[in-house]
Amino acid sequence: MNTFPQTMKCLLLSSYDGIKSLEYAEKKIPNVLTGHVLVKMIAAPMNPSDVMFCAGLYGIQRTLPTIPGFEGCGTVVKSGGGFWANRLMGKLVACGNQEGDGTWAEYIVVNALTCLPLAQDTPISSAACALVNPVSAWALFEPLRKGQVPAMVQTAAASQLGRMILRLSLKYKKDVIHVVHRPALVDLLKKMGAKYVLDSSTSDFEQSLKEITHLLKATYAIDAVGGSLTGTVLAAMPTHSTIHVYGALSMESCSVNPQQFIFEDKKVVGFWLKYWIGKKNPLSLLMEIGKLTKMLDKELKTEVAATLSLEEASRELPNYLQELSKGKVLIKF
Amino acid sequence: MNTFPQTMKCLLLSSYDGIKSLEYAEKKIPNVLTGHVLVKMIAAPMNPSDVMFCAGLYGIQRTLPTIPGFEGCGTVVKSGGGFWANRLMGKLVACGNQEGDGTWAEYIVVNALTCLPLAQDTPISSAACALVNPVSAWALFEPLRKGQVPAMVQTAAASQLGRMILRLSLKYKKDVIHVVHRPALVDLLKKMGAKYVLDSSTSDFEQSLKEITHLLKATYAIDAVGGSLTGTVLAAMPTHSTIHVYGALSMESCSVNPQQFIFEDKKVVGFWLKYWIGKKNPLSLLMEIGKLTKMLDKELKTEVAATLSLEEASRELPNYLQELSKGKVLIKF
Repeated sequence: MNTFPQTMKCLLLSSYDGIKSLEYAEKKIPNVLTGHVLVKMIAAPMNPSDVMFCAGLYGIQRTLPTIPGFEGCGTVVKSGGGFWANRLMGKLVACGNQEGDGTWAEYIVVNALTCLPLAQDTPISSAACALVNPVSAWALFEPLRKGQVPAMVQTAAASQLGRMILRLSLKYKKDVIHVVHRPALVDLLKKMGAKYVLDSSTSDFEQSLKEITHLLKATYAIDAVGGSLTGTVLAAMPTHSTIHVYGALSMESCSVNPQQFIFEDKKVVGFWLKYWIGKKNPLSLLMEIGKLTKMLDKELKTEVAATLSLEEASRELPNYLQELSKGKVLIKF
Repeated sequence: MNTFPQTMKCLLLSSYDGIKSLEYAEKKIPNVLTGHVLVKMIAAPMNPSDVMFCAGLYGIQRTLPTIPGFEGCGTVVKSGGGFWANRLMGKLVACGNQEGDGTWAEYIVVNALTCLPLAQDTPISSAACALVNPVSAWALFEPLRKGQVPAMVQTAAASQLGRMILRLSLKYKKDVIHVVHRPALVDLLKKMGAKYVLDSSTSDFEQSLKEITHLLKATYAIDAVGGSLTGTVLAAMPTHSTIHVYGALSMESCSVNPQQFIFEDKKVVGFWLKYWIGKKNPLSLLMEIGKLTKMLDKELKTEVAATLSLEEASRELPNYLQELSKGKVLIKF
């Protein structure tokens, strides 16, 4: 049996003051209980949900200090025993923790059942980002894929998740109206094959969005921005539309004209992966996720904008907050 | 057969500039087609929906100039023929028009099927306000009455509709948490028998509302105010709550923290009587409304704050906008 160091390097959050308050620190590697595995981390991304978590704005708060990082990939180097944990030994897995210490550390202990085994040749960028965005994109695209709605609108369309939705829409030949906030992003998405891309900073944005959503009968929208954009998009959509808020990149309250609710029968609801998973049959969920892993180097691939060491990350993560549309920032161990 | 004047006095809206732009005018009394009746108006209220309509903010816009007024009561003085229209001759009816000229006139022509016959001894204030508020209150209270939710929250609780909900809650022994915006209104509702009344202008409002909604499991709210109050109320409610916006007294956009949607699975939706009626079986709706007319002098009664002649109304209606919690302003003919 291998021997491991007693301690590991990690990023530590001691107060919910945002990612600027992360410290590069050392912590004891925890014991590996039955049914659990020790994963030697290879890479972990910074997702918007991590940023919200560090600011105390996420749906879960843990006792401090804690190690953030909701996902990442690594190699299983120790099993605490049990069929599934033993089977994972030596495998490349995507893993993460919501309740305990996270992935921004050299090692993590996780329940073996929550690990997603990946093909050894999966690109590291996609392996490290295999859980949050691909499953969210798959879930958010579901109403379109299943034909429950004829078309959809998405904001923050140039984000990594937005691009996954775009690639899924091309694969499944469905209409998605992409909303971005800069002219350069319009070109970028059009080059990727997008048909309908609108820049919310242009003066005719509302009118154009209204025309296209009515033409395509797009009564379903997903929104990662919040603020006034939520209400602007909803107001442009046909009667009986619903917008699903899944992010808060603007860090502002969603603002919607009451008439949209009353006379137009429109709705604002939320989307959180945790609730979506909770509603699924576990077996069919496993099968769906198995399907997703085959798309990790295609429709559900992740592009990386920058790679940082753990030590660099403790200082430099805040600098990448404004550039999420360039690609993911990855911590490599 | 009676003879009628050719013309009638009315309030006329020539531009969607709000009720301040109403004119006292004269207009030809329209012909009475088959299936329709001519009603000599007795009284008509100013509802918030009329204020929104005159400002161009209502869900329906008509060709201008038009006569506003969504409801009122009067005596049927002429039938255009047909079983139902003939039957209504001489009766006291509550009536209104959404698509054509409204009730702020000495006469109105309406489809006989949309008239609600009332007992001759119905108090005029309640007869004039028999349609909009009582049916809305009945509809908004429905989830509680049917036991679909254990308790509810209502904003603008001292409004006429709010008081109807309060009286219904006492009759049906259900828990309603009443939100008002001034200390005097707390006393008023408590005197009426309300158990839970909170003043949104107090510093501990959010904490108190949170405690009570969680204690009573109040996951259903109705909101006539909009603005930041929508989000404040929703944030205080338990996970999976829904707020139904049915008015916009603040004239401001509903503002809700995105985290409430994402992590708390909360929803903002709308309520409009038109949609509620549209979903009902017409026969059972008739029976329900028959039931309501028996409560018009009790649970669903309307209190009047001021009575104006049609001519006075053209000048003075705007002065009563800020005093809706005192009671209805009634135009008497």
